Order: sequence, then structure tokens, then C-alpha cells
Amino acid sequence: MPDRKILEVFPNPASQRDYEISHTHHEFTSMCPITGHPDFAEITVRYVADKTCVELKSLKLYFHAFRNEGIFFEAATNRICDDLGAVLAPRRLTVIANWKGRGGISSVITAEWKKAPRGAKSGR
Amino acid sequence: MPDRKILEVFPNPASQRDYEISHTHHEFTSMCPITGHPDFAEITVRYVADKTCVELKSLKLYFHAFRNEGIFFEAATNRICDDLGAVLAPRRLTVIANWKGRGGISSVITAEWKKAPRGAKSGR
Amino acid sequence: MPDRKILEVFPNPASQRDYEISHTHHEFTSMCPITGHPDFAEITVRYVADKTCVELKSLKLYFHAFRNEGIFFEAATNRICDDLGAVLAPRRLTVIANWKGRGGISSVITAEWKKAPRGAKSGR
Amino acid sequence: MPDRKILEVFPNPASQRDYEISHTHHEFTSMCPITGHPDFAEITVRYVADKTCVELKSLKLYFHAFRNEGIFFEAATNRICDDLGAVLAPRRLTVIANWKGRGGISSVITAEWKKAPRGAKSGR
Amino acid sequence: MPDRKILEVFPNPASQRDYEISHTHHEFTSMCPITGHPDFAEITVRYVADKTCVELKSLKLYFHAFRNEGIFFEAATNRICDDLGAVLAPRRLTVIANWKGRGGISSVITAEWKKAPRGAKSGR
Amino acid sequence: MPDRKILEVFPNPASQRDYEISHTHHEFTSMCPITGHPDFAEITVRYVADKTCVELKSLKLYFHAFRNEGIFFEAATNRICDDLGAVLAPRRLTVIANWKGRGGISSVITAEWKKAPRGAKSGR
Amino acid sequence: MPDRKILEVFPNPASQRDYEISHTHHEFTSMCPITGHPDFAEITVRYVADKTCVELKSLKLYFHAFRNEGIFFEAATNRICDDLGAVLAPRRLTVIANWKGRGGISSVITAEWKKAPRGAKSGR
Amino acid sequence: MPDRKILEVFPNPASQRDYEISHTHHEFTSMCPITGHPDFAEITVRYVADKTCVELKSLKLYFHAFRNEGIFFEAATNRICDDLGAVLAPRRLTVIANWKGRGGISSVITAEWKKAPRGAKSGR
Amino acid sequence: MPDRKILEVFPNPASQRDYEISHTHHEFTSMCPITGHPDFAEITVRYVADKTCVELKSLKLYFHAFRNEGIFFEAATNRICDDLGAVLAPRRLTVIANWKGRGGISSVITAEWKKAPRGAKSGR
Amino acid sequence: MPDRKILEVFPNPASQRDYEISHTHHEFTSMCPITGHPDFAEITVRYVADKTCVELKSLKLYFHAFRNEGIFFEAATNRICDDLGAVLAPRRLTVIANWKGRGGISSVITAEWKKAPRGAKSGR
Repeated sequence: MPDRKILEVFPNPASQRDYEISHTHHEFTSMCPITGHPDFAEITVRYVADKTCVELKSLKLYFHAFRNEGIFFEAATNRICDDLGAVLAPRRLTVIANWKGRGGISSVITAEWKKAPRGAKSGR
Repeated sequence: MPDRKILEVFPNPASQRDYEISHTHHEFTSMCPITGHPDFAEITVRYVADKTCVELKSLKLYFHAFRNEGIFFEAATNRICDDLGAVLAPRRLTVIANWKGRGGISSVITAEWKKAPRGAKSGR
Repeated sequence: MPDRKILEVFPNPASQRDYEISHTHHEFTSMCPITGHPDFAEITVRYVADKTCVELKSLKLYFHAFRNEGIFFEAATNRICDDLGAVLAPRRLTVIANWKGRGGISSVITAEWKKAPRGAKSGR
Repeated sequence: MPDRKILEVFPNPASQRDYEISHTHHEFTSMCPITGHPDFAEITVRYVADKTCVELKSLKLYFHAFRNEGIFFEAATNRICDDLGAVLAPRRLTVIANWKGRGGISSVITAEWKKAPRGAKSGR
Repeated sequence: MPDRKILEVFPNPASQRDYEISHTHHEFTSMCPITGHPDFAEITVRYVADKTCVELKSLKLYFHAFRNEGIFFEAATNRICDDLGAVLAPRRLTVIANWKGRGGISSVITAEWKKAPRGAKSGR
Repeated sequence: MPDRKILEVFPNPASQRDYEISHTHHEFTSMCPITGHPDFAEITVRYVADKTCVELKSLKLYFHAFRNEGIFFEAATNRICDDLGAVLAPRRLTVIANWKGRGGISSVITAEWKKAPRGAKSGR
Repeated sequence: MPDRKILEVFPNPASQRDYEISHTHHEFTSMCPITGHPDFAEITVRYVADKTCVELKSLKLYFHAFRNEGIFFEAATNRICDDLGAVLAPRRLTVIANWKGRGGISSVITAEWKKAPRGAKSGR
Repeated sequence: MPDRKILEVFPNPASQRDYEISHTHHEFTSMCPITGHPDFAEITVRYVADKTCVELKSLKLYFHAFRNEGIFFEAATNRICDDLGAVLAPRRLTVIANWKGRGGISSVITAEWKKAPRGAKSGR
Repeated sequence: MPDRKILEVFPNPASQRDYEISHTHHEFTSMCPITGHPDFAEITVRYVADKTCVELKSLKLYFHAFRNEGIFFEAATNRICDDLGAVLAPRRLTVIANWKGRGGISSVITAEWKKAPRGAKSGR
Repeated sequence: MPDRKILEVFPNPASQRDYEISHTHHEFTSMCPITGHPDFAEITVRYVADKTCVELKSLKLYFHAFRNEGIFFEAATNRICDDLGAVLAPRRLTVIANWKGRGGISSVITAEWKKAPRGAKSGR
């Protein structure tokens, strides 16, 4: 199972400023937990760093760790959001997963991380 | 007639969070109730789940059930919106139906589901 | 001259809901009143119906009636807006006319219909 | 030097309504005042007319008059904005000049005209 | 190291107006400070000038000075933002750096300059 | 089963000349004979008429007749080729069927009709 | 009926060389002779001039003359080919008419003009 | 290791005709044998069937079997070509593998299968 | 009038090899000799050098010299072909001029240079 | 200066077959030998291997070695062609260099390698 410990961080070089960092992984793949068929997605991680930024190579390895995991679209997206939120404790964080079509249907799942998510009001 | 009982659900894996799910069916087809000619559309279902999410394969079969139904653009779009609203009782739901051209005219119908729709003020 | 009586309506199948209908005619053509040269446009009619919706085939015939009319861009766009407003009395209505280039200049005219237009403040 | 007297107007056919007119000239060219090399741009004039609209052929000739003028990007954009503001006295006016690349850099200049520009706060 | 003294300015020709200037450099390249491999980006500088505008050729030379510098994505973007902010003291300034993919991941960094950045609340 | 008798013809208006006619149907749909799921294709019929041309509306109705037929990609493409060859006896005829993806695989089938197909050497 | 006398010619400025001239009219429109509905096409005329070239403005007026003519796709394309062949007597001439979709079918008709067309073998 | 026995065939429904079948798999993935990093490709199999055609679902499963194989671009492409040639013994067969970029380099490998490959002269 | 003396050459660095050089000028502009209106084109010069290659900056200046010349499409294209042929005496040379639309018609003129053009048979 | 010794090879895994390998480097950059300004290109190397194939990572490093070299378009393209021909001794080899625009002109240089280039007749 992908472990959030794979994710490495480095100190935010401009923490006095709220600036946005967006990384898009174009080659995400996991498995359907029911059929075992491969799923493919483009995953965007968009955040405003607080104390730390995610190191790019470790982010790539973290995504690679999903390759042979059986996991649903909704669960994978929220899992990535939780892991990055826990590791970075960012000022803002959004994860957008754009899944390739299955049976003529393509899907986009968008999740936002909140410091105190329970009871918070989300929007876009 | 397409029956909303075709639609199956599974528990929302992250119900503590308001996150958006968007499914786009690229191969919707129904019939014009007057001429009997086929109509084609791309249908997007965009929602914030509450207790349940719609299962993707059942959604595909639900859309397939329109294949030989005679139904107008406006009625089909609102019907899909009503059926998904009734089955999911989501926090938010929008249905966007993008119909291919007929006689040089293409159409887009956009409907939002509300828990208490009568008297509610809609917008985009 | 195109007559708004060409436009036929049918009862709104979901009048309890404010949902948006958008029809785009890709093959509008009229004549320049000065040079007699043909003009071409893509016309989008976007509205929230109240009691009635415009019937699609009658809308096409209404647009065809401009084929040999000499009329300026600004006048044609406002005329279509006035005619559809008068026939539908919609909750909201916008007409967007996207005119192909003449002499290296292309034009877009956007008009909104208001129930009490005089004195109303328009925006987008 | 391009003279704003080239610009001709005609009465606004729907002055009771705030509707938007947008003209895009795809073939604007002027000269760099330092190197003498040609510059190319796509210029969009977007306005809500008050009493008068700009006549399209005169607008084209006004743009052609820049062909052999040496003028900087920023100055040309503001000049066009000032000239059209002075001639039309519109309810709103924005000029967007999209300049082709020079040395691997392309530029977009966006200016808004205000009736009382000094001290007014502009935004987009 | 790229020196902000490379940047030259000229007086804002329309300082009475808040208008937006946007320059996009399509051929930015620097080096990864760890691997020494080249990085490529498209950098957009978008600002509302106060007293001075940046001269385009000096901006190009300033960007060229990064060619053999080892610098991280986040640091390069903030550095450009700081340098232009210091030289121009603009009314508003945003720098958007769109980095080409490395290992299947592409990145966009967006930073805004503030006159008194410490404690200011940034957004988009 | 689609019957080639649906296809109507009219006399070739320029039979003294070998000119090419190409019709592309963008909305072909049939059923998978095994799973019963819908298939979608774009079908191009390209031919040099001899004595007769195919009438466009009858061609559309002929294609519509496949809507609820269970038929494989290879069989459908060859069937269309045989039917049009038999009805038109053209000087040349090629049918190209571009099938939308199933399980991440899209397919193109290209068949040519020959007056004496057995033993003829085909190519492209 | 469009008359080939509308077409004007000028002497070929480089008749010692076989060079190709290609004009594409993007706004051709005629009428369906059965339904009276408008048809739209993009017409390309590609030729190697012998003694004369076709004058561009007269070519535009010749195309405009089809605006209210009822004529089939195949007949219109061959008519244009015959008219230009008769007026220009070119070394080579091809006419390609790309007709917009009707009922989900778009068409391309390609005709070549020959000095002695009867018995000639055409190809592409 | 992917086994060619995964590939299933069915009798060619039109073996009297040389017609072309082309299947494109958009989601091929394997592993780099040196770094262990994932590779991605779009694989096109284009052939003229003799006695049998490849069954589409078995082709998909055959491609899936490469998911965790370490194999070079050149070897994978030739392997697929050999396997399909051996199983189908087609009249013609070409395999085109379009590999996504690694370190800023993308690759296309194109192989043709011959009944008696040794000594045969290949071309395109 | 543009003078071919503007064109400068340098020795072909690989004259032992027949390799192709293609330069495309995206910003060519001249004047219509009748109306005085500006014309715009994209000009491609494609050649196999013999003893000399054309220097790129001088080619740009040569094209700029057409800016205020009144010249027809056919004449301009052949003029450029003659000038480059005379200056370079290349092994092969083709000039392709892609003219932007006038009155809804765009044009492409393609000319080939021959060492002994009179009586030579050109093709593509 | 880039040294062809950087290029490493591995044995052709299918030397009994003439199959084509094509590598495209999207991030080539060198310097103009006159102005010192950076040049950018997309370089495609297309070859049929004989005994050896070029190793991909060494190809990337070979291209990187041009980063601070002053070299003309024509010379760089022929140099790459010579180096790869010498190292691989391939059955066929073509190098296509697609250079980004300078002063509104973009260039494509295409060179083929021959075993006995002097006196050989090249084509495409």
C-alpha cells in the first residue's frame, strides 16, 4: 500500500508569501479493485505551502506506489489529499484526479484539504 | 422506460469532506419522439455526495436504457437530474447535457437539483 | 422580413426548476444592407424558460428567414433578442452573435433581454 | 499619424439596452520606433455603446493608418483606447492588444477607458 | 547569478490609468541544482505599472542570465517576482512559471508581489 | 437486419468524368453481438460513381437500421461495403469504419469493393 | 442561375512555369433543390494556369450567385469544375467541395477537369 | 512474461477480400528493465487478415500482461510483432509503438512482420 | 521595389550531401495594387543548396522590403522564386505562399524553380 | 564541443528485420555563433539499425552537450547526422531539426546519412 512516508519535503523558500504550487502527474495508474483492470489518471496537486514543500522525485515515487493497488476513483483521490495534507500541513490544498474513460464514461474527482475538515464548508 | 432502480450506490468513502465527483458519458443516445430519428449527447453528472455515491457501471446501464426511448432534450435532462437527485440525495448536483447538432443547431441543457426545489433560486 | 410569428413554443416540462437551455445555430447568414454581400454568424440563444420553451425546428426556420435580409450586426442581434423575449417571456435570456470576419475584423455582439429593459442595469 | 477623425460613428440602434459589442482586428501592424522592424498584433475593442457605435470599415482604416508608424506596444494600446473613448463616449470600453513574439517574448496589453479616468480605480 | 540590474525601465506612458501589461517568455531555461539537467519553462510576468515599465529587450537578457544557473522551480519563480517587484514597484504584479515535465510531472508556480508582503493575505 | 433495399440511387449527373464522392456518417451505432453493449463509429463511404449515385437520405436510413443489430466490427464494415457495391456497381469504392474505443482500444477497418473480388489483389 | 460570364481573367504573369494556384472559398452556400433548406460548403479550386488566371473578386461574385439556387452537391461541384475549365482552359484543374453535415452526414466531392474528358482516366 | 497463448482468434469473416484492420491500444504500460520506472505507449496493430482475426478482448489482456515486465522499447515492439505474426499468419502486419517521453525524448518504433523475414527487404 | 541584392549567402557547410532547408516567414505583408489594402501571407522557402545557403537575417529584410509594395499574389510568389533561384542557384527550390483570406477566400500559390525553366515540366 | 564518444550503443535486438526507430528530442538548445542568443529546436533521429542501436540516455547527454555551443542551424543538423551515422553505421538514417522562430522565421533542416555519401543522390 502506498505509504505517505515516501513523500519527502524541503523548507519553503518563500514562506513569507502565499504563492501557489501546482504539480500535474500525467501517468498515474492503479487497478480497479473489482475487475483487476488498470485505471489511468492525470493527477493535479495544487497547494499554498506553509513551512514545507513536497520534493518532486518523492512525489513521483509516491504516485508510482499505486501501480498495483486495487482502489476506487473516489478513495484514491481522497487518500492522496489526506496524505499530502498530513505531510505538508499546507495553507491550502486541492487534488484534482482526471480519470480516463471506462465504458464510455470519464470522471473527474476534486477534493480540498482543510486543517479542521469536520464541519468545514467546502466549495470551489 | 429507464428506471431509476437501475442506479446502484455505495457508501461515500469520505463523507466528512465536501468533494466534487464528475462523470461524463460520451455516448448517450435516445430518439426524437416526433421524427423517430436518433439523438446523441454527452452527459455530465457533477455532484457532492452526502451518504452515497453512484456506482459507475450501473450509471452506464441507466444511460443505455434511454437508447430506444422517444424523449425531448429538455425532458431527458430534467429526468436524469430528478432520478439521480432522488437516488443520491446529494449535497449538490448539476446535470449538463450537450446535444449534437440537428439542422445546424446544437443545444446544451443544464439543470441543478435542489433538496427543496420549489421556490428555490437557481443560478450557475 | 423575419416574423416572430414563425417561432413556436411548447410548455416548459420542468417549470418548477430554473434550468438553462442553450441553442447554437452554426449556419446563420444575412446580407450587408450597404454592400449586399453575405454575412455569416454563429448565434447562441441561452435562456431560463418560464412557461414555454422555443420549438427547435421553428427556431431554425426563423433564422433561415434572415437569409436575404439586409441588416447590420448590431440590429440583427438585438432583433433576435427582442423577438425571443417577446415570444417566450423567459426568466433570463442572452443572445450571443459571433460574426465571421470582414476585412480582417470579426465581431461578437451580446445582448440580454430584461422584462422591464428601460432603466435596467445590464452586465455579464 | 493615425487621426481619430478617421473613425466614423452611427446611432446606437438599441441604446435603451446595455449590450456588448466586440470587434477583433486580426491584422494590426505597426513599426518598432527603435529598430524599425514591423510589429504585429491582434486588437480587440470591446464596448457598451451609449449614443453611437463605431462604423466597421472606418475602424479598419483607422487601424491601417498605424502601418508605418513607429510606436511602442504600451503607447499604441493606450492611444487606441483614448481615441475610441473620445469618439464614442461609451458606457464601458476595453482594448486588448495581443502582440506577436519578439525574441521569444509575446505580450498582451489591456486598457480600460473611464469617463473620469484620473483617480478612478481600474480592475478586471 | 542573474542580477536585477540587467532590468531596464522606461517611464509609464499612461500612468494616470491602471492598465495591465503581460509579457510571456516562451524559452526560459535553467539547470536543476541537484542533477545538473536542464529545465525549461514558459514565464509570464503580468503587472500594472506605476511609474515605470520594464524594457522588453532587457527582460529577455535578464531571463537569458538564468541559462546556466542551478535553481529550483520554487526559488526561480519567487526570485523573478522579487526582482521585478524591486525594480518596478508596480501597482500589481503576478509571475506565473509553467515548467515542462520531468519524470511525467509538469509544474506551475504562481507568485504575487506585494508592497508590504509580510503579513499580507494573498489569493488569486 | 439492415436491408440494402433501403438504399436509393439517382443517375450520376457527370458520368463522363471519374470524380470522387465521399460521405461520412458521424453517428453510426450498432450493438456488440456478445455483450449487447452499444458500439459507435464514424463511417466513410468513398466512391467513383458509374451510372448511379446513392441518395443521401436513404444512406442515412440504411445506417440507422444497424442501431439494434448485434454485429462485429469486421462484419459490419464488410457488409456495408458489399451492400453499396451491389447497389451502385461503382468504378471504385472504399469503406472506412472508425470505431470508438472499447477497453482502451479503438479500431479502424478499411475495405475496398472490387467488381471481381475473388483473386483480385487489394492495397491502399 | 450562376453564369460563367461572371468569371473574369487576367494574363498569367509566369506562364513559362507550371506553378499551382489554390483558392478556398470558406462561405459557399446554396439551397437543397428538394427541401429548400440551405447547404453550406468550403470550395477549393486548385489549378495550374495556362494563358490566364481567374480574378479573385469575380470568383467571389460567381460563388455568391449560387446563394439562392437549388442544386445537388454532385451537380454543383461538377458545374463549378466545368465553368472554370471552360473559362481558364488550364493545364490542370481540381475542384474540392467540402459540404457541411446534413442529418449527421458530411460530404466531400472532388472533380478534375480534363481538356478531353471523355475516355480520360482520372485518379488522385 | 506475456504469453502469446493469451491471444485468441476467430475466423476472418471476409477472407476473399484484402481489407485492413487496425487496433490502437491507448494505455500500454511496461517497466524500464534498468531503472524500474514505468513506460507508457500507444500501440497500433495494423494487418490484413488471412484465415483468422485477433479477438479484441484477448488482445487487451495480452497487452495488460506487459504491465510489470521489464523490457526495452525496441524489444517490446518486436516481441508484439513476432507474437501477432505467429498467431495470425496475416497477409500483412505492421506494429507501431509510440512511446511517451523520457527525459525530453519520445520514441516511435515501427516493425513489419514478413512470412519469411530472414533476407527479406523491408520498407515503408 | 524589393531588390534581390538584399539577399546574402554563405557557403553550404555540407555541399557533399543533398539535404533540405526550409524557412517559413510567418509575417509577410504587402499591398493590393488595386485597392491599396494590406495583404498578409506565410511564405515557405524550401530548397536543397548547391554552393551557397541564404543568410537568415538578410532573408527577413528581403521579405520586409515588400511591406509597401503593390503586387498581386501570383506575381509576388513567382518574384520570390525567381530572386532566390537567381541568387542561390540551388539544386531544388520551392516557394509556397499561403495568403490570408480576402472576402472569404484564402489562397495558396506554389512555385518551383528550375535551372532551365522554359519548357521544363513541373509537378509536385 | 559535443563529442560523438558520448553516444553509447547496444546490440540490435531484431537485426534480422528492417524496422524503424525514431527518437524526438523536444528540448534541444544551442547558441547563435554570431549574436550569442539561444536557439531552440526539436530534433528527430529516424533510423533503421544494423548491428547496434543508440542508447537513449547517452543520446540525451549528447544533445545536452550542445547547450553552450555556438553553431549554425545547417551545421548543427549535419553534425548530428554525421555523428550518428559514424557511431551506428545504420541501414538508413534521417535527422530532422525543427528550429523555433527567430525574427518571425522558423526553419526545418532535413539531412540523410549515406554509407557512401559523396556522389550519392539523395531524396525524400
